[in-house]
Amino acid sequence: MPDHHVTDVRSEFSFINWIRTRTPAYPGVQIGIGDDAGLFRFGEAGECLITTDMLMDGVDFWLHELEPSVVGRKALAVSLSDIAAMAGRPLAAVIAVALPKDGGRQLAERIHAGVSALAAEFQVAVIGGDTNSWDGPLVICSTVLGSPTARGPVRRNGAQAGDWIMVTGDLGGSILGKHLAFRPRVLEAFELHKAVDLHAMIDISDGLAADLHHLLDESGVGATIRAANLPISEAALRIDDLRSPVEHALGDGEDFELLFTVSPEDGGRLCAHPPCDVRLSHIGEITADPSCTLVEIDGHSVPLAPQGWVHSLGDDSARKSPE
Amino acid sequence: MPDHHVTDVRSEFSFINWIRTRTPAYPGVQIGIGDDAGLFRFGEAGECLITTDMLMDGVDFWLHELEPSVVGRKALAVSLSDIAAMAGRPLAAVIAVALPKDGGRQLAERIHAGVSALAAEFQVAVIGGDTNSWDGPLVICSTVLGSPTARGPVRRNGAQAGDWIMVTGDLGGSILGKHLAFRPRVLEAFELHKAVDLHAMIDISDGLAADLHHLLDESGVGATIRAANLPISEAALRIDDLRSPVEHALGDGEDFELLFTVSPEDGGRLCAHPPCDVRLSHIGEITADPSCTLVEIDGHSVPLAPQGWVHSLGDDSARKSPE
Repeated sequence: MPDHHVTDVRSEFSFINWIRTRTPAYPGVQIGIGDDAGLFRFGEAGECLITTDMLMDGVDFWLHELEPSVVGRKALAVSLSDIAAMAGRPLAAVIAVALPKDGGRQLAERIHAGVSALAAEFQVAVIGGDTNSWDGPLVICSTVLGSPTARGPVRRNGAQAGDWIMVTGDLGGSILGKHLAFRPRVLEAFELHKAVDLHAMIDISDGLAADLHHLLDESGVGATIRAANLPISEAALRIDDLRSPVEHALGDGEDFELLFTVSPEDGGRLCAHPPCDVRLSHIGEITADPSCTLVEIDGHSVPLAPQGWVHSLGDDSARKSPE
Repeated sequence: MPDHHVTDVRSEFSFINWIRTRTPAYPGVQIGIGDDAGLFRFGEAGECLITTDMLMDGVDFWLHELEPSVVGRKALAVSLSDIAAMAGRPLAAVIAVALPKDGGRQLAERIHAGVSALAAEFQVAVIGGDTNSWDGPLVICSTVLGSPTARGPVRRNGAQAGDWIMVTGDLGGSILGKHLAFRPRVLEAFELHKAVDLHAMIDISDGLAADLHHLLDESGVGATIRAANLPISEAALRIDDLRSPVEHALGDGEDFELLFTVSPEDGGRLCAHPPCDVRLSHIGEITADPSCTLVEIDGHSVPLAPQGWVHSLGDDSARKSPE
């Protein structure tokens, strides 16, 4: 039940009209913002990728220390990263927000500015949304539609024993800034998918180890990862805590890099002739044995647990502090 | 940044697997829950309707006084109502939630039960989502994809001077229960769209007067509404406050009935041979003059303001108490 009886121009609908005047036209958009639903034409294949992500103040960002456009940008970027992880082309987005009452119209406009700037960068049409206000903290939910390329979507379940395991970019320490400012690997996924046959892919949102386990579980295989080959980020080296840079690279969430597997031949090809500007690292191999092993820098092998950050559903016994 | 470091079975991923085992297969679903994105095939037309709605505890429902499945049901129902308002066929949904930490897995399962029961009723495939937990109240965001029928979507902007204004069902007092238990008018919209040429349509979420104004604004026309012809709900008669049943029917939000306009000939046809079981009422006419008038029960004409409930964006001067 909506919460205020308003007839003033500063209402939800005035804001929606404000957004409409700022929304560029894109091919495919049949009905944009301002009707009961948006309408998007996917062309003849008629296949639609869809992903949704909810970000909450105090969990995924800290509004009091940020320019709000950064939050809008992050919400869309997280969903674009999911479409990238399927090697898809993001096309359209809808954005729902619950705005704190004391933020008002200005907050809404700044969030929208962040969303629309990133949308424009990736030629994504914002075709709808839902604007609410409440007594709670800011919540923003981004839903993105995309289409697979002619080669089809790359799933999590196609990894094969013997595959090389590779990642884009650098890992760890994203909390120092990258988790807000990362550039979703949409173009890189595209170029990789065009260059070689990607067997399986996922974006690193929960942490390398956790997301690797998702990919292994779906594919029914195991892996060996070599710590010495991990692309440690400068931020992971810089964080001053009890965890090592390798632990940060393995366990930290929100790097939003791509983790993928390819045949050794294709892996060698990618290393010799990288199809994109971002660094590509060969960090291990897929094994038929379903266990997951880390070869530490000193050469010792240890089991690699899915030690990423995931959301607890409220059972305290399930929580485990980072060690 | 996700908020807990967990490796236990009670994590988000255990819940996702629990959902997967309970998700029926539907035609069109190429990739369902459990990958970075879902994939849905829309067939040859390749046209996709999309709508998103965010519901918050304390605003759209009161979790402490409800069985949580009711909340899940409502979240999906609100989005289905938007697809109905375009006379579309809902096909697929993604659901994002921010769960309060003390609710845990059981809350997540009850919400899912409400979502999936309604999804099954309307043959809607739940193909993805995002599960989070936090210290805040429950937030749930539903996004539904649909396809227009062969006659195309019905928009808000097609009302023509002389059109009859009609509504499905009864209006007012939904706060007494209907706002949680309403049945989205998906099938009714379908039957109406098949029977006649619907010029414009919107679902009544902000209140009849407010949503009528949206439709009039989009169409560039005005209207005359006759209070004597409003289908007053039993709940609107029963509410004991300072507002009259007519004021409740005009101003209360969340009836989720359909408000639409048709030619007088088609209107007469619908009244003579209703294509659906739900009551249809002819409540007024569209006028070329863009003002909006209410003919009160005593015959007096007064201006009809958009006195529905809408979300304020935090400017106190904009708020106005219901009179």
